[in-house]
Amino acid sequence: MGLFPAALEVLIEKFASLPGIGQKSAQRLAFHLLALPEGEAESFAAAVIGAARDLRLCGVCQNITDADVCLICGNDRRDKGVICVVADPKSVMAIERSREYGGVYHVLHGVLSPMNHIGPDDIKIKELVARVADGEVSEVIMATNPDTEGETTARYISRLLRPFDIKVTRLAYGIPVGSSLEFTDDATLMRALAGRQEM
Amino acid sequence: MGLFPAALEVLIEKFASLPGIGQKSAQRLAFHLLALPEGEAESFAAAVIGAARDLRLCGVCQNITDADVCLICGNDRRDKGVICVVADPKSVMAIERSREYGGVYHVLHGVLSPMNHIGPDDIKIKELVARVADGEVSEVIMATNPDTEGETTARYISRLLRPFDIKVTRLAYGIPVGSSLEFTDDATLMRALAGRQEM
Repeated sequence: MGLFPAALEVLIEKFASLPGIGQKSAQRLAFHLLALPEGEAESFAAAVIGAARDLRLCGVCQNITDADVCLICGNDRRDKGVICVVADPKSVMAIERSREYGGVYHVLHGVLSPMNHIGPDDIKIKELVARVADGEVSEVIMATNPDTEGETTARYISRLLRPFDIKVTRLAYGIPVGSSLEFTDDATLMRALAGRQEM
Repeated sequence: MGLFPAALEVLIEKFASLPGIGQKSAQRLAFHLLALPEGEAESFAAAVIGAARDLRLCGVCQNITDADVCLICGNDRRDKGVICVVADPKSVMAIERSREYGGVYHVLHGVLSPMNHIGPDDIKIKELVARVADGEVSEVIMATNPDTEGETTARYISRLLRPFDIKVTRLAYGIPVGSSLEFTDDATLMRALAGRQEM
């Protein structure tokens, strides 16, 4: 529309370029920032610049970190022989919250998606193969999301790792703890039945 | 959780402080910014800083502008004798889009809201009264939103303006063009009936 002053149009456009933020939300966010007390907008901008400047990918597991090697890879008590492969840093956080896992991670930064033109070279698969080829790994746990693309990615990687003498596993499918059978979808129930375990 | 590097936590927190953005969305936005090509995050930050630096309120109508007086107030062909009073800059844009209005505006930057502790001194009412007291104004059109707070604000202001010898009007209520009677709420229908006009 171009009726707002240029600096405001630019800010709205920047917000609207973010995922999940439409034109209306972008306007709302821009007006909110302008209405903040003196210095608050600058502090928001500083956070963006600081993050872009300080953050990089861990040289080992590709997780986001502010050091050359992330805290998990740099932790002597983590088992470097077990690598849990996830799609993104948020998955690392989710698994870390469970406090059950003592190995290390590998963050793919995406999943294979022919629809979106994302192939093996677009995510961190090469880096995973290089780690496994290094020889110290005994198990790779595939923990991509339980959807079609996550499944495809897991299968693709497990095929790539077949030449190496290691165990490749997949997170178990089943009924979520605390949920009810009534509201569990058929596919999950089928998986839960197929994967039933002795008590 | 504090498991992310500090610079990332700070960025997520800044996004989460924006209205309508929860913790999950804030994470998504932060990761999106970090995944952008070199320089894009900085350009986002620059837009925030630029907006905060360049934008101010028009000395006359209080609309957001990058000059001392906004384009509308500075336009010789706009009728300075008619002031349309709105709650926010977005309302100015909405009315401008209709291309029907040739007067000027007054932006309140909010509405009276006892629930949210917003009183007459918290919005730009004094500035409006000063403009009317200046003597050149013949009509003030109240165009706050048709909700309780907008109504209250319009009534409050029209009482304040009573001592001046000017016309104070209100946007007409009625059935939205293109809508259907079936889906029009009772209050609107009542207003539409009461305000019926000869054809």
